Amino acid sequence: MAATPYQQLEQEFRRLHAFRGALSLLRWDQAVMMPRGSSDVRGEQLAALETEYHALLTAPKVTRLLDRAQANAQGMQDWQLANLREMRRQRDHAIATPPTLVSRLARATARAEAKWIEARRTGDFSSFAPHLEEVVQLVRDKAALLGQALNLQPYDALVDEFSPGITTGEIDALFKTVARKLPSLINEAVEHQARNPPLPITARITVSKQRALAVEVMKAIGFPFDRGRLDESEHPFTEGVPGDIRVTTRFHASEPFYGLLGVLHESGHAMYDLGLPQDWRDQPVGRDRGMALEESQSLLLEMIVGRSRAFVRYLKPLLEKHFGVSGPEWDTEQLYRYLNRVRRGLIRVDADELTYPLHIMLRYELERKILTGELPIRGIPDAWNAFMDDRLGIRPTSDSEGCLQDIHWAVGSFGYFPSYALGALIAAQLWESLHQQRPTTDEEIAAGQFGPLFNWLRENVHGQGARISIQELMKNATGKPLAATSSLRYLEAKYLEAPPH
Amino acid sequence: MAATPYQQLEQEFRRLHAFRGALSLLRWDQAVMMPRGSSDVRGEQLAALETEYHALLTAPKVTRLLDRAQANAQGMQDWQLANLREMRRQRDHAIATPPTLVSRLARATARAEAKWIEARRTGDFSSFAPHLEEVVQLVRDKAALLGQALNLQPYDALVDEFSPGITTGEIDALFKTVARKLPSLINEAVEHQARNPPLPITARITVSKQRALAVEVMKAIGFPFDRGRLDESEHPFTEGVPGDIRVTTRFHASEPFYGLLGVLHESGHAMYDLGLPQDWRDQPVGRDRGMALEESQSLLLEMIVGRSRAFVRYLKPLLEKHFGVSGPEWDTEQLYRYLNRVRRGLIRVDADELTYPLHIMLRYELERKILTGELPIRGIPDAWNAFMDDRLGIRPTSDSEGCLQDIHWAVGSFGYFPSYALGALIAAQLWESLHQQRPTTDEEIAAGQFGPLFNWLRENVHGQGARISIQELMKNATGKPLAATSSLRYLEAKYLEAPPH
Repeated sequence: MAATPYQQLEQEFRRLHAFRGALSLLRWDQAVMMPRGSSDVRGEQLAALETEYHALLTAPKVTRLLDRAQANAQGMQDWQLANLREMRRQRDHAIATPPTLVSRLARATARAEAKWIEARRTGDFSSFAPHLEEVVQLVRDKAALLGQALNLQPYDALVDEFSPGITTGEIDALFKTVARKLPSLINEAVEHQARNPPLPITARITVSKQRALAVEVMKAIGFPFDRGRLDESEHPFTEGVPGDIRVTTRFHASEPFYGLLGVLHESGHAMYDLGLPQDWRDQPVGRDRGMALEESQSLLLEMIVGRSRAFVRYLKPLLEKHFGVSGPEWDTEQLYRYLNRVRRGLIRVDADELTYPLHIMLRYELERKILTGELPIRGIPDAWNAFMDDRLGIRPTSDSEGCLQDIHWAVGSFGYFPSYALGALIAAQLWESLHQQRPTTDEEIAAGQFGPLFNWLRENVHGQGARISIQELMKNATGKPLAATSSLRYLEAKYLEAPPH
Repeated sequence: MAATPYQQLEQEFRRLHAFRGALSLLRWDQAVMMPRGSSDVRGEQLAALETEYHALLTAPKVTRLLDRAQANAQGMQDWQLANLREMRRQRDHAIATPPTLVSRLARATARAEAKWIEARRTGDFSSFAPHLEEVVQLVRDKAALLGQALNLQPYDALVDEFSPGITTGEIDALFKTVARKLPSLINEAVEHQARNPPLPITARITVSKQRALAVEVMKAIGFPFDRGRLDESEHPFTEGVPGDIRVTTRFHASEPFYGLLGVLHESGHAMYDLGLPQDWRDQPVGRDRGMALEESQSLLLEMIVGRSRAFVRYLKPLLEKHFGVSGPEWDTEQLYRYLNRVRRGLIRVDADELTYPLHIMLRYELERKILTGELPIRGIPDAWNAFMDDRLGIRPTSDSEGCLQDIHWAVGSFGYFPSYALGALIAAQLWESLHQQRPTTDEEIAAGQFGPLFNWLRENVHGQGARISIQELMKNATGKPLAATSSLRYLEAKYLEAPPH
């Protein structure tokens, strides 16, 4: 019997999945294993595979099969229908940006990235500005075309790539609620902590000891080392596909928790990917539901679980075992407070969970104005510094620790930043529901039993793949749409708690 | 101005080159880095990329462009014409085997390989026989189709894939000359060595010390660690493309030279690949001239250079430095004799350079008869054992150390074996000419100066890419066609020399 159009589509996307896996390995290798002088060769390989991937996804054959499968959708199962929808979504995103624009963007961002690296080093924004200008103009074109194709406002179309189904209107409402509460909460938390500061930790711990601890924690979490790896790289990241997931971190001898928290963050991504529905692992509906949900899983593990009292109780004997440390600063309560210090800082990636949303709101506010043209490129540094001064009460002394600190705009990633803050909101709301449904969670974590936590996440989040929208997923898992209330409740309870008796 | 057909072809093959590089990285990773449980996922990625590679190479567009470029070949340069010829050669090889046969072969060899692993362990040839039968029938079909397309005899068509331009007639003549001399030469060498055996080496050397020595030797040879790597794997191999070449070896604490000689062998391949014409690096004419020439370069470094007195003189202070060894068995002359012991053995991959050709002739003789059907599958063990008994005077006690020792037939690699022996003949003839043209070579090697050696190889071999045939290359480099005389002269001089005064 001949394959149906839908079956043929599954075959086409199976092949695309294999291409994605190969591309992911090329990127992993580039960051972890590749000799320094081989980047040109690797660049050619990545470009060839990406071009072919794009060509296969946008081929007339796929469009034809999509139309025919759509016309014969009666009798198809729920997951198949969702798969068909996700297939079309991927194809629509890919076909909206013509290859000429893709390659112009690739060239412009390659130039801008090189200039950005230099400008960040010297703090010279003006040398970077014309290159950013070029990128922004091309991103505007892309946003307009994507918006037309997806029937969305231009900026919403960019957001849709990373946080599918979430609109600017929703983000505005969420961020407004957070912004109303956060500044005063930060002030109170800082004062609160100043009254009883944690002891400093000055021990230097060798990388091999830190690595052994990280591996033991990953094993406890359930990371499968027979289908994944842990390596070290300049910046922590996760690559691969379910079946071969690769996590990296970076260890610093003088910062004994830096590497471990990086491992927790990336393991959050990895566990999400590993928990995706196995039956659909090579199909669009079997993929993650975008970066906002990805970040929710990494932040849940790094920020909420990994800095909880329960986790610190689990960690304490492991610190003694692997680091051989003792003394008052390694006491559970001290460590807990040490890991949850709130500090007003200039650098996003170093920020604690309380100040982090402000860093995102700044970028969200600015990048929308940059795209509409309301904020000219040359006005970025002043706008940036004014925001920081106004909301956090600190001011960069150089653009290197201001508007030049992130790579995102240089490489054309507009619409990405909101997913970090959305991820934090999603994580807090999931955590609240999980706690209500399973009050024993803290005790389990303290005992190093992560099975129940991940079973809940697998059932409610990971195993859903891309079958439903973020909003549906939140309603199913927590009984209500995504809101900022859980996050604010969580932050208030944590950072303004009465000192433990 | 629109691109000419030839220019469009260069663009197509540039893309294919990038695919080859990506495939090579997937295989390297599979053997060196991949978690054990990820082989299914990797298999899908390799299959998807290989299928796409085949589809791109055999697309009607490429055929059309080849015809049009051929029709407009007047005025094209020598290298371009050779490139066009190699493009067609690759396309002809690829298109001769229909995709259905390719996938049937892939499935049959995957099954046969699994059975072979088991059969080799248990020594049970009869359980492997039906699977080998299936593979052989498909290889027969492939050989017939390839032969028709290339206008060659079936077996010659298979050989052409690995040793292009070399016919069975030529191989027969070469092997006959060698076979006439070798048995008596082996007898004399064994007796000669028995009169004055080298001291045994029993030192255990840690892997990290062996690795440090290997890296220093690779650096001296000129291996560029900023565009290549050395790793460890089950079996030594070389993967990658010029610009990112990756060599592996395996170290055994109780065999201090095993890993180093593996490194020399693989570095021979790597230096060939690195010396290919840079201007043509992503085109068919810029590739190596097949496995016979590849093996000539690895054997030249491992067997001829690496076991020469000059090299041992270079190595001696490095052994003292890295291994911290001393004593009479580490004396230069002792070491030289230790590294050049001749022993009649059953296993090809452990054989010395004197007995090695016999192992190849056995396989060459048998695989031709297997393909014609003259030797039925069930008759292989007896034929194998009779040959070993007759020519080497030893007899396997089990098929595990007999006809089950190599993977080649299980995976359908018929026509490959001759390239090992051809490689040894080519290496000896090149070495003789190099010595005549540059009598200072030994002194340079002893001083750790490998530049002149590789300059000569680069000019005469590596830099030629696939521009000319093996026979033309040999005539240009040595003044005469490929013959067995240099090799026999070299072996006689080396193994029957009078003891040094």
